[in-house]
Amino acid sequence: MWSCIFALLPLAVAVVSYDPTWESLDTRPLPPWYDNVKIGIFLHWGVFSVPSFGSEWFWSNWEGAHNPQYIKFMEENYRPGFTYADFAAQFTTEFYDPEQWASVFNASGARYIVLTSKHHEGFTNWPSKYSWNWNSMDVGPKRDLVGDLAKAIRTKTPHIHFGLYHSLYEWFHPLYKQDKANNFTTNDFVTSKTMPELYELVEEYHPDVIWSDGDWETKDEYWNATGFLAWLFNDSPVKDTVVVNDRWGIGIPCHHGSYYTCTDRYNPGVLQPHKWENCMTLDRHSWGFRRNAPATDYLSIHDLITEVAMTISCGGNILINVGPTHDGILPPIMEERLRQMGSWLDINGEAIYESKPWKYQNDSLTSGVWFTAKDDLVYGIVLHWPKGGLLTLGSVSATPQTHITMLGYNDNNIRSSLQAKNVRRGMQIVFPDMADVSSQWSWVLVMSGIIPV
Amino acid sequence: MWSCIFALLPLAVAVVSYDPTWESLDTRPLPPWYDNVKIGIFLHWGVFSVPSFGSEWFWSNWEGAHNPQYIKFMEENYRPGFTYADFAAQFTTEFYDPEQWASVFNASGARYIVLTSKHHEGFTNWPSKYSWNWNSMDVGPKRDLVGDLAKAIRTKTPHIHFGLYHSLYEWFHPLYKQDKANNFTTNDFVTSKTMPELYELVEEYHPDVIWSDGDWETKDEYWNATGFLAWLFNDSPVKDTVVVNDRWGIGIPCHHGSYYTCTDRYNPGVLQPHKWENCMTLDRHSWGFRRNAPATDYLSIHDLITEVAMTISCGGNILINVGPTHDGILPPIMEERLRQMGSWLDINGEAIYESKPWKYQNDSLTSGVWFTAKDDLVYGIVLHWPKGGLLTLGSVSATPQTHITMLGYNDNNIRSSLQAKNVRRGMQIVFPDMADVSSQWSWVLVMSGIIPV
Amino acid sequence: MWSCIFALLPLAVAVVSYDPTWESLDTRPLPPWYDNVKIGIFLHWGVFSVPSFGSEWFWSNWEGAHNPQYIKFMEENYRPGFTYADFAAQFTTEFYDPEQWASVFNASGARYIVLTSKHHEGFTNWPSKYSWNWNSMDVGPKRDLVGDLAKAIRTKTPHIHFGLYHSLYEWFHPLYKQDKANNFTTNDFVTSKTMPELYELVEEYHPDVIWSDGDWETKDEYWNATGFLAWLFNDSPVKDTVVVNDRWGIGIPCHHGSYYTCTDRYNPGVLQPHKWENCMTLDRHSWGFRRNAPATDYLSIHDLITEVAMTISCGGNILINVGPTHDGILPPIMEERLRQMGSWLDINGEAIYESKPWKYQNDSLTSGVWFTAKDDLVYGIVLHWPKGGLLTLGSVSATPQTHITMLGYNDNNIRSSLQAKNVRRGMQIVFPDMADVSSQWSWVLVMSGIIPV
Amino acid sequence: MWSCIFALLPLAVAVVSYDPTWESLDTRPLPPWYDNVKIGIFLHWGVFSVPSFGSEWFWSNWEGAHNPQYIKFMEENYRPGFTYADFAAQFTTEFYDPEQWASVFNASGARYIVLTSKHHEGFTNWPSKYSWNWNSMDVGPKRDLVGDLAKAIRTKTPHIHFGLYHSLYEWFHPLYKQDKANNFTTNDFVTSKTMPELYELVEEYHPDVIWSDGDWETKDEYWNATGFLAWLFNDSPVKDTVVVNDRWGIGIPCHHGSYYTCTDRYNPGVLQPHKWENCMTLDRHSWGFRRNAPATDYLSIHDLITEVAMTISCGGNILINVGPTHDGILPPIMEERLRQMGSWLDINGEAIYESKPWKYQNDSLTSGVWFTAKDDLVYGIVLHWPKGGLLTLGSVSATPQTHITMLGYNDNNIRSSLQAKNVRRGMQIVFPDMADVSSQWSWVLVMSGIIPV
Repeated sequence: MWSCIFALLPLAVAVVSYDPTWESLDTRPLPPWYDNVKIGIFLHWGVFSVPSFGSEWFWSNWEGAHNPQYIKFMEENYRPGFTYADFAAQFTTEFYDPEQWASVFNASGARYIVLTSKHHEGFTNWPSKYSWNWNSMDVGPKRDLVGDLAKAIRTKTPHIHFGLYHSLYEWFHPLYKQDKANNFTTNDFVTSKTMPELYELVEEYHPDVIWSDGDWETKDEYWNATGFLAWLFNDSPVKDTVVVNDRWGIGIPCHHGSYYTCTDRYNPGVLQPHKWENCMTLDRHSWGFRRNAPATDYLSIHDLITEVAMTISCGGNILINVGPTHDGILPPIMEERLRQMGSWLDINGEAIYESKPWKYQNDSLTSGVWFTAKDDLVYGIVLHWPKGGLLTLGSVSATPQTHITMLGYNDNNIRSSLQAKNVRRGMQIVFPDMADVSSQWSWVLVMSGIIPV
Repeated sequence: MWSCIFALLPLAVAVVSYDPTWESLDTRPLPPWYDNVKIGIFLHWGVFSVPSFGSEWFWSNWEGAHNPQYIKFMEENYRPGFTYADFAAQFTTEFYDPEQWASVFNASGARYIVLTSKHHEGFTNWPSKYSWNWNSMDVGPKRDLVGDLAKAIRTKTPHIHFGLYHSLYEWFHPLYKQDKANNFTTNDFVTSKTMPELYELVEEYHPDVIWSDGDWETKDEYWNATGFLAWLFNDSPVKDTVVVNDRWGIGIPCHHGSYYTCTDRYNPGVLQPHKWENCMTLDRHSWGFRRNAPATDYLSIHDLITEVAMTISCGGNILINVGPTHDGILPPIMEERLRQMGSWLDINGEAIYESKPWKYQNDSLTSGVWFTAKDDLVYGIVLHWPKGGLLTLGSVSATPQTHITMLGYNDNNIRSSLQAKNVRRGMQIVFPDMADVSSQWSWVLVMSGIIPV
Repeated sequence: MWSCIFALLPLAVAVVSYDPTWESLDTRPLPPWYDNVKIGIFLHWGVFSVPSFGSEWFWSNWEGAHNPQYIKFMEENYRPGFTYADFAAQFTTEFYDPEQWASVFNASGARYIVLTSKHHEGFTNWPSKYSWNWNSMDVGPKRDLVGDLAKAIRTKTPHIHFGLYHSLYEWFHPLYKQDKANNFTTNDFVTSKTMPELYELVEEYHPDVIWSDGDWETKDEYWNATGFLAWLFNDSPVKDTVVVNDRWGIGIPCHHGSYYTCTDRYNPGVLQPHKWENCMTLDRHSWGFRRNAPATDYLSIHDLITEVAMTISCGGNILINVGPTHDGILPPIMEERLRQMGSWLDINGEAIYESKPWKYQNDSLTSGVWFTAKDDLVYGIVLHWPKGGLLTLGSVSATPQTHITMLGYNDNNIRSSLQAKNVRRGMQIVFPDMADVSSQWSWVLVMSGIIPV
Repeated sequence: MWSCIFALLPLAVAVVSYDPTWESLDTRPLPPWYDNVKIGIFLHWGVFSVPSFGSEWFWSNWEGAHNPQYIKFMEENYRPGFTYADFAAQFTTEFYDPEQWASVFNASGARYIVLTSKHHEGFTNWPSKYSWNWNSMDVGPKRDLVGDLAKAIRTKTPHIHFGLYHSLYEWFHPLYKQDKANNFTTNDFVTSKTMPELYELVEEYHPDVIWSDGDWETKDEYWNATGFLAWLFNDSPVKDTVVVNDRWGIGIPCHHGSYYTCTDRYNPGVLQPHKWENCMTLDRHSWGFRRNAPATDYLSIHDLITEVAMTISCGGNILINVGPTHDGILPPIMEERLRQMGSWLDINGEAIYESKPWKYQNDSLTSGVWFTAKDDLVYGIVLHWPKGGLLTLGSVSATPQTHITMLGYNDNNIRSSLQAKNVRRGMQIVFPDMADVSSQWSWVLVMSGIIPV
């Protein structure tokens, strides 16, 4: 089982050198912190946060796909000739307070964050030497957005890992368009832009995650992916700790990388043979902030906990996306969801952090029950309070040693036991009076001495 | 008791003519719709929604009080010489969709709304002839914000009453400042600005509420309050239906007007002898939207229901304030609160709408229980689920006829009875399993056949 | 002859009181300074200086007449919904240096200026109490444009008289539109806007000229013109010195007022029975600055001197219009024309200032020769150097006492005589070598002892 | 004499191939068009045209040298954090009409123009692939400023040659700063920015002139100057016609290049051994437009003709700089100077175009007389009309064959002769009556049959 590898890691790190081949790179063990932390926050922030309309693909939808909705938006609200680059001057971030952000992330229970250092628009949220006048120091914020957050996280909430998203391609970069027109037989864009930037990012900010994206139009050879990763794993300042995802060229996602993301909002519902991540959004329709998203477009806290339970049970991490505003605010409805999740994890985090998948992922009889495990304990995350207070699990059988408690159901700070017995179709558990349980939205059973059926 | 007067109203309306004196005006009965609807939404929207910093008193705090925080905000974010009036061009309201607003108001359960037609800044949200180039048609929105909402409300949600807030004074109007410098012995401001505007508002938009404000620096004689109200009640197109509040000059609030608001967030906690209104805010610190308000500055849904219960029990209406954004959005966290309230009212509205205060307002033994009444029923709004599921009320005594149910606790759509009996200190009610009750956040007992103690 | 009246003026002033009738007002003598100074500068500056496209009638042409050229300009360069009032925030005047302006006016030889205090757009260039948030202190300049220029002129160039243009009507003022819709049977606009403003202007800035305009849609009775003028001439702080023009209502121009302007660019070419003024523009097509005016749209210096000569000869004053830019600059090509005129007046001003019309205004034989007079001297302003250096004048006859010199043609600072003799068709004058004359563009003959023919 | 080489040029072109050494490159003959045209117009246009304050070195003065005047300008007029790149969105060029520009250039008599394709700020006025989002198509104008002018010139005024200015260095480019910090031992900036741009410029726009600049901080080896020039002269599409100046690295100006510019406003006053150019400005203090330049900061037409006469006499070309505005206007005062020069050249161009230097450049006796020659004619450009109409030249002696005329002094379209005779100190010429000469500002004598003294 893949989780066993982790134990060997500290020994292995010192001596290995990786070749720039997937075969070799794939032998690198996943740094163990990543599987332990489970829950991360994704931040999509950039020039697209200025129009904050439609989605973070604003530019592409407008001037690439010529989507009528975006054309209309521009026609109705801006002077003719207003360019996407003109938005950058309005990316003001005046309320950006990275320490306050760190405080919210901390309250959410997340243990890593991944910030867009550069999205497909090409605007770098750090003062890159390779993106002059199209970065957050030269236009708009006049500030190193990446560096300021890295510093705040590491100072204020050092238990939270700091990762960076980076798009390989840039929709409208003329050198990329030229390479593409040449069927990727040239690679001026990669040598003068992508690679210098990636090295700069790693050397400057020491990210724990590199969340690569924008790879899909061509092969990893064009991107020099394995060359970069060999350096990253052998010689970079983060060689021992960094994890990378799997978006490094056609055919690579779901096949290579420290962990797999496969597709956006990947959430397969069954156990995966390789470490994976469910990157998903609080706003159902967009990664970037949308000014006109109504409240009903956001996941409810119950929706969110459902995603968490399902993902962790199947061996994934979850990366929950938030879209800050152009003026540097975490929108309150998203902040509230994060704080609600944090209050849930305060009670139920034991079932999540450092947990492992169990033999079964969800119950065979009662839907909405997801399992995790730790040592000899099995956790059942119950998404819906059972009718009549009786829950019957089909994947579990009681034994004389069976002992069941519920997180947040205590008597004088001691966990109270729940009655359980085998019935015809499985094991029946008697829930307490709901009013006596401190958890909301879903509930976690802690089971020992039970047998998988 | 004041509520008895209402029954006579339809008869009385036709023949009365009011003199421009408080003595006479005070004899006008309150149009009955107002007491019935109970719950309204207040909307503070104006040029202050552009900086949306600090509060809707931005201009006064900045250039009146010279508050250092505001001076700093301007110095850090705007060119020197940027004036408050310059903000107006950025009041773009591009996403303003009055029908969508109406839909949210409807979902909230509110039955009247009050929109700022003009706040102390003097900017009129309608194209007033008396506020040229300082109104929403001439600068910024290029739209009749008041008229468009009036139309949407009346078309889409005709059961919701449409009211207008109007500030008598304007912080920086030169004619007001001149009158004030003359110790209000002149009234150029009133004759050329306030009065023409109020007549224009009433004749154009037929408001059901005129929510007057900004009265406090001088007497009602200066404002010509009684003259205006006599016209409003005798001759205006809304003479039969309009209600007005009590802010018409020094000494008037809490003493004259259709209903009393007394002070902002007035919530006395005891029954009042005259119809009153608790105007309060979802954002604890501001009526206007604040971009940098964190999620924790907003009332929780439990806080909001607590305010509702307390206010209605004491004979008040509640006017819940929301601050739309400069681009025309109801902020999602506020929309969510309104929708949560609406879902609560869907179950529990019977205890609110058309209710009357009961003999007692809150329970003498268990805090957090507020009473309302309708016909021979008494409603007990229970803000906290009792420990152990047993609630003891000190203000109520059971009789053989006592019958108790809980809203949202049904069996096949029939309300299930709760057991109740008198115990040493009052009447004890046995709550059902919380999981079987559809209401959240607080619960309403419906009691008949009980005796006040 | 009307000029004789002036001598009596100092005596007359003290005792006269005027009735608010034209009959009475017309008896007031013209304050003598006005006829003496001859040359003034007109300044058209306002919010129209921001688009500075088409003309100062931008707003009217755009949103009144719906001129396609203006609609296209707005569509191509501004967001939909951009209003005229939105331009005001860009009226920045950052380079406005009234003392530098005064220095240029002084160099031009002008002896009075007339600044638009308020054009038909209604924006007041002073902080009027009656034009809140539509004046130069509240939006845009954040400065008293009128007051700052008045101060600079009076401090730096006290020999230059300071006058103010004021438009009676405002294209889009809602109260004016209402009065107009009422066929001017109401006058809310006049009582609440025009009159208070005019009094404020006079009391605050003590103008030497009130250059009224925008009168033409209705009668002077509506404007309360005679009432205002009676106060102005009897009781105002400028009663002894102020002059007013003739634009006070239908039928008034060219019939009443201190001096007549009749129509824009009025230049009749013959002697007028009443003091008049030729208000004209350096930009042939606009009073306000036009950003896209090519050099060829400006009068040449020869064109300008031609206008000066013709106007002064016929008893007029000339008011030469300059359009400053939105950032407070006198456009260099206009500054250059003014300085060129000043260099011409340095040599030839003797024929202009304090001059009187002569018996004839221009020569009967040679075109382009205009006459003025002073005491017993006759001045001939020769616009074109005569072919062969011989000029024959048909309106003049030589006598034995005839003595002729040319301004700027001196020998050791003593004016050299020119030979002249009567020939068949008039008097022939021998011009010197052009290279020996310091004047450029046109030349002034000083003639004594000649006889009009 | 260097001009003899030109005759051989057409033969030579076909076979020569140049090495990338100055020794070899210097053997390339100057394409003959350049010496013939004499008069060019320089255009400095870029993002600096937006602030248009101080000079086109705005950015460097502000954020490089921290000049207090610029810091004050920014503090007083812009929000804190406003960056230089933010200006680009205001580079709107809405009135840019290249055909109208061409028409003005044509009227000026100029026969080549040189437009800043990119100044030291790095902003490319064409859509360069190597300056993404910092070029005129991606921000601001949304237009190919270079291409549009090239097309207009070639279509409307094909006799005018089209040249391009290009700055090698960019003040703030991070790769340039990095190379510089490395003591120019690296050249990432040159290989990824300068060279690709220059090739792109030549291949796209086929310039007749490459006016290099910004070379002075390091040697030509860093810039790869000789490599580029070898390609330009051997293989580029303009190899037969292009001329380049001399600013290609330390020590190169005044030593290598098609022609020499040496320093800005280079005007040595004596004959030069190598073809050179006097690049100078109509605004005495700036190359870029300055909004607040008073009229007196511009050269008078007499100043300009003086520069022309002096420069051409000494074998130079003159490149007269004009600074267009951010909205695409040639400022009228500059347009007027150009048109005045054109009217002068209409009469006097014979002495300028295709002329050669004479034996002497200016007269030994009378200052302000400059000579040019063509075939057997000698032209004397007389800047000041002589006192008394008698001009004595010390460098010329009359012979019996001497024949002298003056351009613009004709009788029935036949040039009238002037009397000339040798006097004690030289040759004396009798000028006609100035009034009979059509030229203004200065006058050209055409002399044949005279002998240099």
